[in-house]
Amino acid sequence: MPTDDAGNCLEGVRVLDLTQFEAGPSCTEALAFLGADVVKVENPKGDPGRSSGGAPGADAWYFLQYNANKRSITVNLKDPRGLALLKDMVTKADVFIENYAPGAIERLGLGADVVRGINPAIIYAQVKGFGTGSPYENNLAFDMIAQACGDTMSVTGPKDGPPMKPGPSIGDTGTGMLLAISVLGALFRRTRTGQGEHLQVAMQDAMLHYIRGAFAAHARTGKPAPRAGSASLGATNPPCGIFPCKPGGANDYVFVYTSRGNPEHWPRLLKVIGREDLIGDERYATREARIAHEPEINAIISEWTRHHTKQDAMAIIGAVGVPAGAVLDTGELLGDPSFEARGIMQTIQHPKAGPYKMPAWPVRFSGSPPPIRPAPLLGGNNEDVLNDWLGMSRDEVGSLQADKVI
Amino acid sequence: MPTDDAGNCLEGVRVLDLTQFEAGPSCTEALAFLGADVVKVENPKGDPGRSSGGAPGADAWYFLQYNANKRSITVNLKDPRGLALLKDMVTKADVFIENYAPGAIERLGLGADVVRGINPAIIYAQVKGFGTGSPYENNLAFDMIAQACGDTMSVTGPKDGPPMKPGPSIGDTGTGMLLAISVLGALFRRTRTGQGEHLQVAMQDAMLHYIRGAFAAHARTGKPAPRAGSASLGATNPPCGIFPCKPGGANDYVFVYTSRGNPEHWPRLLKVIGREDLIGDERYATREARIAHEPEINAIISEWTRHHTKQDAMAIIGAVGVPAGAVLDTGELLGDPSFEARGIMQTIQHPKAGPYKMPAWPVRFSGSPPPIRPAPLLGGNNEDVLNDWLGMSRDEVGSLQADKVI
Repeated sequence: MPTDDAGNCLEGVRVLDLTQFEAGPSCTEALAFLGADVVKVENPKGDPGRSSGGAPGADAWYFLQYNANKRSITVNLKDPRGLALLKDMVTKADVFIENYAPGAIERLGLGADVVRGINPAIIYAQVKGFGTGSPYENNLAFDMIAQACGDTMSVTGPKDGPPMKPGPSIGDTGTGMLLAISVLGALFRRTRTGQGEHLQVAMQDAMLHYIRGAFAAHARTGKPAPRAGSASLGATNPPCGIFPCKPGGANDYVFVYTSRGNPEHWPRLLKVIGREDLIGDERYATREARIAHEPEINAIISEWTRHHTKQDAMAIIGAVGVPAGAVLDTGELLGDPSFEARGIMQTIQHPKAGPYKMPAWPVRFSGSPPPIRPAPLLGGNNEDVLNDWLGMSRDEVGSLQADKVI
Repeated sequence: MPTDDAGNCLEGVRVLDLTQFEAGPSCTEALAFLGADVVKVENPKGDPGRSSGGAPGADAWYFLQYNANKRSITVNLKDPRGLALLKDMVTKADVFIENYAPGAIERLGLGADVVRGINPAIIYAQVKGFGTGSPYENNLAFDMIAQACGDTMSVTGPKDGPPMKPGPSIGDTGTGMLLAISVLGALFRRTRTGQGEHLQVAMQDAMLHYIRGAFAAHARTGKPAPRAGSASLGATNPPCGIFPCKPGGANDYVFVYTSRGNPEHWPRLLKVIGREDLIGDERYATREARIAHEPEINAIISEWTRHHTKQDAMAIIGAVGVPAGAVLDTGELLGDPSFEARGIMQTIQHPKAGPYKMPAWPVRFSGSPPPIRPAPLLGGNNEDVLNDWLGMSRDEVGSLQADKVI
């Protein structure tokens, strides 16, 4: 029986979480998976992420993904008593995180100077679309805007077609992960020095971290990194791409790659696809020759892959030590029992949505990912949080609720 | 003058870094940016990443990107004296990280049981392509294989075309970031409990963390998440996509998005593009109406964007509070002086490659990203590391070198 070996990493760490949508929530959720007490502070209408896309009963699936293992309280920050309550919580918090539109947290009266003035040891962390000093520092941003302005779109898509948005929400979750690393670094230092910190990350800036291969490609050629279709940026080592498999559905492809670092890959591949006759053939014997004959090579491999399912092709080619990967879709991943058996996907029991299978924190601690607890209902923890953090009685909380402060 | 406020976060933390290529090195580099003493242990031939793609004098640009702020030593682990040396270093290390092919670290005699036996308080961390218990656990993986098998390709590309590989190396760096968070969580706990840890992450599993929006889309429709072209997964709120700009180059597009959460975006957009006449027009007045007339809407916006550069279009639309983002390429980002002024890109002076401008750790600590120090030359720190960690004299190190142990 796996135990929650991750969940005591951040035991006792209190996070005051004023984030919404995904970039901020993915950061605080990572801290929650590792055992921090993350209290999501929402205005009485709730994080707009609660209604992003379809909502199963109460909150959107989207919201359930990015707010697991947290608690939720409602606070009306425009009411002076609500603001005072939040400032009391600041005195008890280790981390404060927000990702409002530019200038909004300052207008609420909770800018870095105010919060750090109340609690100098706090880690105050912010996500914005564009960095302070950028020409666009006051612009709104969402995942796709960060991806447009951060190069990830310009290097994604067909070689001769328009840019495409990568499917993964790197603009949001990608940014959130870099902030989580930085928060943890500052928390670690604080155990030794007591020092607080002011952390800021811009989504556009964060994109550069994920696209450094494109900057390396630019340095090699002196030209903007192009789109690489289904291959890797700067890959010049055919075969490297996807090949069609039976029965020919939209995702029936297998990625096949022979590494430059391992010249055995190519003859092994020829052997496993029944083309031993081509081993040593000078048209394909070297990397340079394969570059010159790439269309023929792709045709040779496709001729074999078309007669196999992507799963079989991956298994057969992978078994001889050549990198191969089936292009799997969400349905195939959800249907693969191995993920649930290994705890990489877990089924939560949400009080309104019912059972829901979702990806867990994928890093295993002593063999197991941390268990998922369902995202909280709006204000679902008003009483227990205000009691835990501030020692408030049930009557005091009830009175704040009656007065619409929370 | 900005000070390196990030660089003392992990002061005194020693990382024994047996990683290569990108997934592992991006993780240890993040720790190095925050001030850990990361010692890259390479066999005398060096990390194969040193020759991935073009090499400016000595090491590839690719290598410089993922190995900044580290030190390098060479150790021949197949020599019993080399292995003994590494085991001595294990006694001084806080973190041990490797991303060799499945089974390789155990064959070297440095499996988790051995290393944790020597130093029970160590954080022992591993990256593999596929998870223990997966049908593919012994398969090789590279970034593109993880992206094929982890759904990111199936949701990227033209709506009616084949899957595409996202340009960003989420399979590598995306995995590395999740491991860095987990290492830091375990290090934080260790300050309190002294407990060591065994962390493992599979690149395929890590992809699910970045594609949770696709799983939310699947939950809404009951069907595999489709490719969304230039839009966002599950976006049903036109306009949401890229629009052509002058002068019509490969990346001359601007992303424009009107948020469902903010109904003012649409009339603001119409006004700024000179189509106030359409405000209130029932063909476009509601989200449902805009979905029904998406091609017309896209034509109306394109008619305006075609007469503007992407930078102007972004500035004009963004200024009225509507999300807009120019599709920028690596050349445009490298040429924008704001990144260097803000420290988001920094120019290193590499002893062999000379000056090289590259992206820094993008999170600002008290206003500044941490400074970049150039990636080390192969074995460039043999003497100082073995002196710092093990108290060896110059003569002792020289003798190991003469015997080809290091």
